[in-house]
Amino acid sequence: MGAASLVPRQVVAQHANRESCWIIVHNKVYDITDFLDEHPGGSKIILRYAGKDATAAYEPIHPPDMISSNLSPEKHLGIVEPSEDFEDVVKTAEDRKRQLLLDSRPPLDEILNLHDFEAVAKKVLPDKAWAYYSSASDDEIAIRENRAAYQRVWFMPRILRNVTSVDWSTTILGHKSSLPVYISATALGKLGHPDGELNLTRAAAKHGIIQMIPTLASCSFDEILDAATPGQPLFLQLYVNRDREVTKKYVQHAEKRGVSGLFITVDAPQLGRREKDMRMKFVEDDGCAKVQDGQDDIKKDQGIARAISSFIDPSLAWDDIPWFRSITKMPIILKGVASPQDALLAYDAGVQGIVLSNHGGRQLDSARSGLENLVGIVAALKTRGPWPNPRFSVFIDGGVRRASDVLKALALGASAVGIGRGFLYAFSSYGQPGVERAIEILRDEFEMNMRLLGARTLSDLGPEMVDASALHTHAGLAPRDNLYEATYEPLRLARFNESKL
Amino acid sequence: MGAASLVPRQVVAQHANRESCWIIVHNKVYDITDFLDEHPGGSKIILRYAGKDATAAYEPIHPPDMISSNLSPEKHLGIVEPSEDFEDVVKTAEDRKRQLLLDSRPPLDEILNLHDFEAVAKKVLPDKAWAYYSSASDDEIAIRENRAAYQRVWFMPRILRNVTSVDWSTTILGHKSSLPVYISATALGKLGHPDGELNLTRAAAKHGIIQMIPTLASCSFDEILDAATPGQPLFLQLYVNRDREVTKKYVQHAEKRGVSGLFITVDAPQLGRREKDMRMKFVEDDGCAKVQDGQDDIKKDQGIARAISSFIDPSLAWDDIPWFRSITKMPIILKGVASPQDALLAYDAGVQGIVLSNHGGRQLDSARSGLENLVGIVAALKTRGPWPNPRFSVFIDGGVRRASDVLKALALGASAVGIGRGFLYAFSSYGQPGVERAIEILRDEFEMNMRLLGARTLSDLGPEMVDASALHTHAGLAPRDNLYEATYEPLRLARFNESKL
Amino acid sequence: MGAASLVPRQVVAQHANRESCWIIVHNKVYDITDFLDEHPGGSKIILRYAGKDATAAYEPIHPPDMISSNLSPEKHLGIVEPSEDFEDVVKTAEDRKRQLLLDSRPPLDEILNLHDFEAVAKKVLPDKAWAYYSSASDDEIAIRENRAAYQRVWFMPRILRNVTSVDWSTTILGHKSSLPVYISATALGKLGHPDGELNLTRAAAKHGIIQMIPTLASCSFDEILDAATPGQPLFLQLYVNRDREVTKKYVQHAEKRGVSGLFITVDAPQLGRREKDMRMKFVEDDGCAKVQDGQDDIKKDQGIARAISSFIDPSLAWDDIPWFRSITKMPIILKGVASPQDALLAYDAGVQGIVLSNHGGRQLDSARSGLENLVGIVAALKTRGPWPNPRFSVFIDGGVRRASDVLKALALGASAVGIGRGFLYAFSSYGQPGVERAIEILRDEFEMNMRLLGARTLSDLGPEMVDASALHTHAGLAPRDNLYEATYEPLRLARFNESKL
Amino acid sequence: MGAASLVPRQVVAQHANRESCWIIVHNKVYDITDFLDEHPGGSKIILRYAGKDATAAYEPIHPPDMISSNLSPEKHLGIVEPSEDFEDVVKTAEDRKRQLLLDSRPPLDEILNLHDFEAVAKKVLPDKAWAYYSSASDDEIAIRENRAAYQRVWFMPRILRNVTSVDWSTTILGHKSSLPVYISATALGKLGHPDGELNLTRAAAKHGIIQMIPTLASCSFDEILDAATPGQPLFLQLYVNRDREVTKKYVQHAEKRGVSGLFITVDAPQLGRREKDMRMKFVEDDGCAKVQDGQDDIKKDQGIARAISSFIDPSLAWDDIPWFRSITKMPIILKGVASPQDALLAYDAGVQGIVLSNHGGRQLDSARSGLENLVGIVAALKTRGPWPNPRFSVFIDGGVRRASDVLKALALGASAVGIGRGFLYAFSSYGQPGVERAIEILRDEFEMNMRLLGARTLSDLGPEMVDASALHTHAGLAPRDNLYEATYEPLRLARFNESKL
Repeated sequence: MGAASLVPRQVVAQHANRESCWIIVHNKVYDITDFLDEHPGGSKIILRYAGKDATAAYEPIHPPDMISSNLSPEKHLGIVEPSEDFEDVVKTAEDRKRQLLLDSRPPLDEILNLHDFEAVAKKVLPDKAWAYYSSASDDEIAIRENRAAYQRVWFMPRILRNVTSVDWSTTILGHKSSLPVYISATALGKLGHPDGELNLTRAAAKHGIIQMIPTLASCSFDEILDAATPGQPLFLQLYVNRDREVTKKYVQHAEKRGVSGLFITVDAPQLGRREKDMRMKFVEDDGCAKVQDGQDDIKKDQGIARAISSFIDPSLAWDDIPWFRSITKMPIILKGVASPQDALLAYDAGVQGIVLSNHGGRQLDSARSGLENLVGIVAALKTRGPWPNPRFSVFIDGGVRRASDVLKALALGASAVGIGRGFLYAFSSYGQPGVERAIEILRDEFEMNMRLLGARTLSDLGPEMVDASALHTHAGLAPRDNLYEATYEPLRLARFNESKL
Repeated sequence: MGAASLVPRQVVAQHANRESCWIIVHNKVYDITDFLDEHPGGSKIILRYAGKDATAAYEPIHPPDMISSNLSPEKHLGIVEPSEDFEDVVKTAEDRKRQLLLDSRPPLDEILNLHDFEAVAKKVLPDKAWAYYSSASDDEIAIRENRAAYQRVWFMPRILRNVTSVDWSTTILGHKSSLPVYISATALGKLGHPDGELNLTRAAAKHGIIQMIPTLASCSFDEILDAATPGQPLFLQLYVNRDREVTKKYVQHAEKRGVSGLFITVDAPQLGRREKDMRMKFVEDDGCAKVQDGQDDIKKDQGIARAISSFIDPSLAWDDIPWFRSITKMPIILKGVASPQDALLAYDAGVQGIVLSNHGGRQLDSARSGLENLVGIVAALKTRGPWPNPRFSVFIDGGVRRASDVLKALALGASAVGIGRGFLYAFSSYGQPGVERAIEILRDEFEMNMRLLGARTLSDLGPEMVDASALHTHAGLAPRDNLYEATYEPLRLARFNESKL
Repeated sequence: MGAASLVPRQVVAQHANRESCWIIVHNKVYDITDFLDEHPGGSKIILRYAGKDATAAYEPIHPPDMISSNLSPEKHLGIVEPSEDFEDVVKTAEDRKRQLLLDSRPPLDEILNLHDFEAVAKKVLPDKAWAYYSSASDDEIAIRENRAAYQRVWFMPRILRNVTSVDWSTTILGHKSSLPVYISATALGKLGHPDGELNLTRAAAKHGIIQMIPTLASCSFDEILDAATPGQPLFLQLYVNRDREVTKKYVQHAEKRGVSGLFITVDAPQLGRREKDMRMKFVEDDGCAKVQDGQDDIKKDQGIARAISSFIDPSLAWDDIPWFRSITKMPIILKGVASPQDALLAYDAGVQGIVLSNHGGRQLDSARSGLENLVGIVAALKTRGPWPNPRFSVFIDGGVRRASDVLKALALGASAVGIGRGFLYAFSSYGQPGVERAIEILRDEFEMNMRLLGARTLSDLGPEMVDASALHTHAGLAPRDNLYEATYEPLRLARFNESKL
Repeated sequence: MGAASLVPRQVVAQHANRESCWIIVHNKVYDITDFLDEHPGGSKIILRYAGKDATAAYEPIHPPDMISSNLSPEKHLGIVEPSEDFEDVVKTAEDRKRQLLLDSRPPLDEILNLHDFEAVAKKVLPDKAWAYYSSASDDEIAIRENRAAYQRVWFMPRILRNVTSVDWSTTILGHKSSLPVYISATALGKLGHPDGELNLTRAAAKHGIIQMIPTLASCSFDEILDAATPGQPLFLQLYVNRDREVTKKYVQHAEKRGVSGLFITVDAPQLGRREKDMRMKFVEDDGCAKVQDGQDDIKKDQGIARAISSFIDPSLAWDDIPWFRSITKMPIILKGVASPQDALLAYDAGVQGIVLSNHGGRQLDSARSGLENLVGIVAALKTRGPWPNPRFSVFIDGGVRRASDVLKALALGASAVGIGRGFLYAFSSYGQPGVERAIEILRDEFEMNMRLLGARTLSDLGPEMVDASALHTHAGLAPRDNLYEATYEPLRLARFNESKL
């Protein structure tokens, strides 16, 4: 068949097995029989859509042109015959329930803090999206710690400084930012909202903050750049590809389109096990798998995170830095530094900065929070010169929900702070207006907190305003150990003879 | 119309919109159409009462003469025609429910501690009043910490001292006090009880303790002074006005009427975000606001706290101190000091004392408790001379519920301790007898605790009687992080196939 | 009427008010009209029994001969006429329920640890008795801490020592004890069991441990001594009377009857406020008291603890020690020491020992646990000579539930450990066999724990076997702050419009 | 009767009391009347099976040949007559329920971590087996601490090391192991699965890890060895018998059959009180025991643990080590060391290693975790030479659920880590495939965690990768004190008169 042929839906439906597997994506019909075993996410997940329209499942987790550019032309079978009842098919019971929840969201002006977005997102997101966004690795200790660490740092505010006007704007890698906050990269934005990452791009432009574009965006890189305003500063988060030519092309294209900073992820030679995400797969499955079955397929069936990340190069090492330096003039920042030793190696390697991060708790579980690492890393960097150091930035992300969290990090020496999930949940709940509301909330919080701290500008912040002495105790909030508690059988006391009572 | 005209209620009812807005307050009719957009609390809240009697809503949060003195005479339209069924209108279902709760309060002699008042107030207060009184800023970490900090200080009592008679009286800024406790300023007393702050004035007179009058009292300053007995010592809490002449007039009037101490609030250049209070507004609203609506109005609609505080001057600074010194001879105390640096600045600026306070957790969230700051601040002040120092007092407030809390603070060097909410809840629950019972409870607790500590007078208290070594660990009580827990999705374990069971 | 007259019950019933108040106790009729206002527990509680039989209420909280010896002979009105249905009257619904619970108690061999007794006692004790026994002062922080402190000390056991036979016997003040444990004094044993303290005396005799007789026993001192076996060592706990002659007579009588040690309570110049006990009173009252009523009576109506303790002398001081030395040759031990300073004063005053105790959490709340004080006090006493010191014993009590608790205290330097509530709950649940079972459980636990620790005798115990480094952190177990949590209103998140869902 | 006689079931049934007690085990009939009082587990438990088939109860807790080799030949009465309905008898309601649970287990590929096995085992195991496996001693503080300790150690991962291939294999006592983990000994495997310990032997062979064979295995030693593959390395855990000849024979037989290491348990001169296990007995009993009854029998009726352990020699001591050295050439490892002093004694005694262990929390309660002891013990051993030291291994077990736990221990200096319950629950839930899945999960976790830590081989691990500074605080997770909470009566606040509401 030629590329322009019209394929009846019944014909597609006849190719619904491992021997002959056709699928529809964006109204085009593809024969993916030979590709089945090469699919990074495993064949099982595709076979669920054999002979059917896979667009809804395909779209949020693949760039729009992935299938067309990876499949040889003879597998492009044509256009599917239009269907009258297609729309009806899509409106499942779950869709209707979700629509009802969207209709009853709290009005946006009742959203008072970033927690609120999270609570709304938890309700309105499809289960699979919530699992992917909210999950973290293993026992989810690191994600919990990210938030808890901020609650172990306390303020000692200063008084009687004229705080009529306070200014919390800053520059990040030389670019003006209306907040000391940037939008950190999070993957697969269309799982949460049809416009995906574009919600962030547009809101960032409007409010003068900087977005870091994720490698694993649902929107293509160019879609995002096309949505940006002229001169809008944007950063790029980079997962380095096993094929360095792909990476080189990607980086140089980004630089050409005006991206202002390259954040190379260094804490993800392999994506973490996010069991909440992995279990979601089982919920969707029919649950009839036999106990002994499926051993071979396990590795390919480990939730969204594993499915989309097989290209990441685990061989990335310090001696790759010069090569990056050779292919781009963008400032290079290493994202995911966790030790004073590596902070000094980064400084000495000549990069422009580091992000202290445990990847939102999604990679190595039990990794200390960025905030806890900040203290020792700033101390180490002071051995290289006065701090702050104009040639080296230290960013931090993870667990930030309040401007006060940001101010604690800045007081301890951070240059600026990344917020990922906060903005992600904002657009998942309310689209672009949600992101704008989130920025507005942060702005209000910065104004209030700066005044109450007695800081007129960010340079007034300093270590004497915070008490971090309890930071390393890991005491304070009392987390629950759900897995332990779920299996631990509490001790009982002696029992009465209830039959007598 | 002349000021003495009689206006029929039906006529008032016709002016019930933004174009023409009349309201009734204390049986007088006002045309506030032009004032709508200037209302610090926003126009929306007034419009709810357009064409109606607004007295109940107006009274607790405005001084009695505010409307008459701020509105030009031609807007004073006259007296409203008396109505027979007015009383019935006021008795809403909520009023009746509240009355029933008041009728079933525990007898006053079953109130055993200050927690009890809080529990009663929580039930009998109107929701809006409870929200305003009990709320604190942001994540309400600081308010929780205020109480928790006391539980991290432990007693090491002394024995075999003749404690037949123990004496816990003291002098505060030169005035006798039957307890080492003063009544700290809390705003808007009429939200809790029709007599508002007068409950405190009268009980203080009767039992020989000192009340600090709040700038934002529901009763006018003069009403309170008129209720005082001759020579009754009173302090004044001061929010400094943007218009310093207003402040000067207010302070000099207070001094003239015999006020004995000026407590200038220095931790509130802007009032904190008290989200519990802010959400209360939404509960009252019809909830039909569209998601995108109302963005512009948000700032003016942020609960009671913001509505009443717009006059506060954020430019207040150290160099204003000499001016205050020039306008009054009252001792000046800075309320809201949180760092050793500022304590020394205050000492060197020649003021008579400071209050270590995080404003009941209502301003900068995550600010350390006064108790925790006390240790370092007393240490710093000892560098200026022996402690206690007759020319400089260090007060403390926040989280105090027991005489034992007070004794811990005194043992660590405080001069006296302020209790705000404790007394507020006492009169909200039981009026003046409630405040008297609260004082009586404290008196009993002081007697018992002094004896058990082996302290015959307050000067027997000293640091060797307390173990504060765990104060800075922030461990001990295990607070719940409600916001986090409400959105965090606990990890699950593998699931059984329940359809088979 | 003569002392031998027979008084009809109807006649007694006619004297049922403040003007003429007769009561029956142990079948004798007394006119207590004039005594009403002198009753240490207040008149109100007696008036409840005016004209009725008060034996059940009288017995557990007064020595048997108190009424007969304090009331002048002419008020002894005679013997009450026997009543057939008297027994029936006593069998209230509560009695029947209690009997049912007693019948369904777990068999004694299913009681595995001292917690079990507490759980059984909680169910089978009358509410008033449970409230009196289990209550502690104020916020009940100290009682909680007593138990928690033991859980912050950890073992580092030794291995490969021949532990075929282990010996946990010791001598206490020169008397053999089969356990390094004595029965600490607790008051009012008949609230829990008709035989009261005799349960302890008999079990102690049988198993070779030492009982400390409480001043406030339900059984009279002589009853207890009469129940003892010849030569059975007994200690005496002493509340010093305001009338020193009473005390002298009491102490010398005790010495004469063979008591071997005098434990003078020094942490109770006044008994603590035990609010749980106090609230019990209100439960019994009709609850109809008016809000303003009863202010005057409050002081006399503060639960059992206050009612029975008015004789205690708050003037007791260090300079009384020589007088005690002059009236008795028994070793003198000060019970309730809490600071290194006082431990040294006691040593230098020549007494034979001290008990580190916060009185089971029933006196000064927030007082550190005996265990926490032990570390510093032993360190202080080592400045007076090598430790253990044959002329000075350091005992400890509070929160002990396991032999392992005892071993921790001994390893840190204690001479022996007192257990109060543990044995009290044992006989409240099962009488004397309960106490014997408790001793047996401890014996088994000592055997096991000594072997597992690698200690063949108690002298093998030493500080290197325990890690007490976390003792002062007060972290570890996470207590709930019930009072705070009961009134704290948790933060909410933004709400959905539920009417749409 | 001769050994080959056929005995009718009705005849057996007639010998069902203390005077004449026959039982059937594995189809053979035995007269155990005279043995009743010698049964280490007490006579009561046997009498339950008098005249019946006791195989199901006998099998998991006795070696197969114990009865035949301990009972004199004339008590072997013959073979029981086959019964048609025997199978039906065994299928009790509980069996059927258990089968249903087994049928609905999660498919094995949905088991994502070792917690999952525990959750499944908790449901599918018979109550008695779950109680025996999951119980720990006394208040179960030590078992809780084992898990919690790992959560107080945090990672500081290294970045930008080429981690394309990572290798987590090691050698343990000179034998290759595919994981730095061995299967630690746990007793009575047949309680969980009919193949008992053989599940472990076979899975270990297949995946190249080492099993430690327990003295108290349900399978006989030779059965296990027969199941092993040629050359498969196996260790032996040894409880030393009071009769050293028995031990000598056992050890030498093991060496002859090729066992590669002798792990002598030194922390169990007596088995701990595991009250959960002990209470299980009561659940099975009829509950009709009288309160005073059964005192004498208590000691023999203390759950499975006590029943099977009476042979263990409490006299084992350091001077026995040369004797062990004389009877075997296997490396000797002391299992259960807990102090630096004993670690040095072991080193100096010439053994080849130690296991830091508190016996899974089953022996001395409150004993510190192996992980906490590791830090001080490695520090002590460094005084004997550089660490790691080729002639001395330090193993650790207790609370390990994740590869990340293992890596923390290795980074702090451990040689390898034992996992007991993790594998036990794996085969209790799924048999051998469960154990293989557990190994597979650990393998995946090692791969991921090594990469994320930046460790290419285990020798890359070091103390700079972990922050153990909070390990000794015992803060962090907030455990519940179930026994205390079950009996503690929370404070109440003043009560409203509910009859009016």
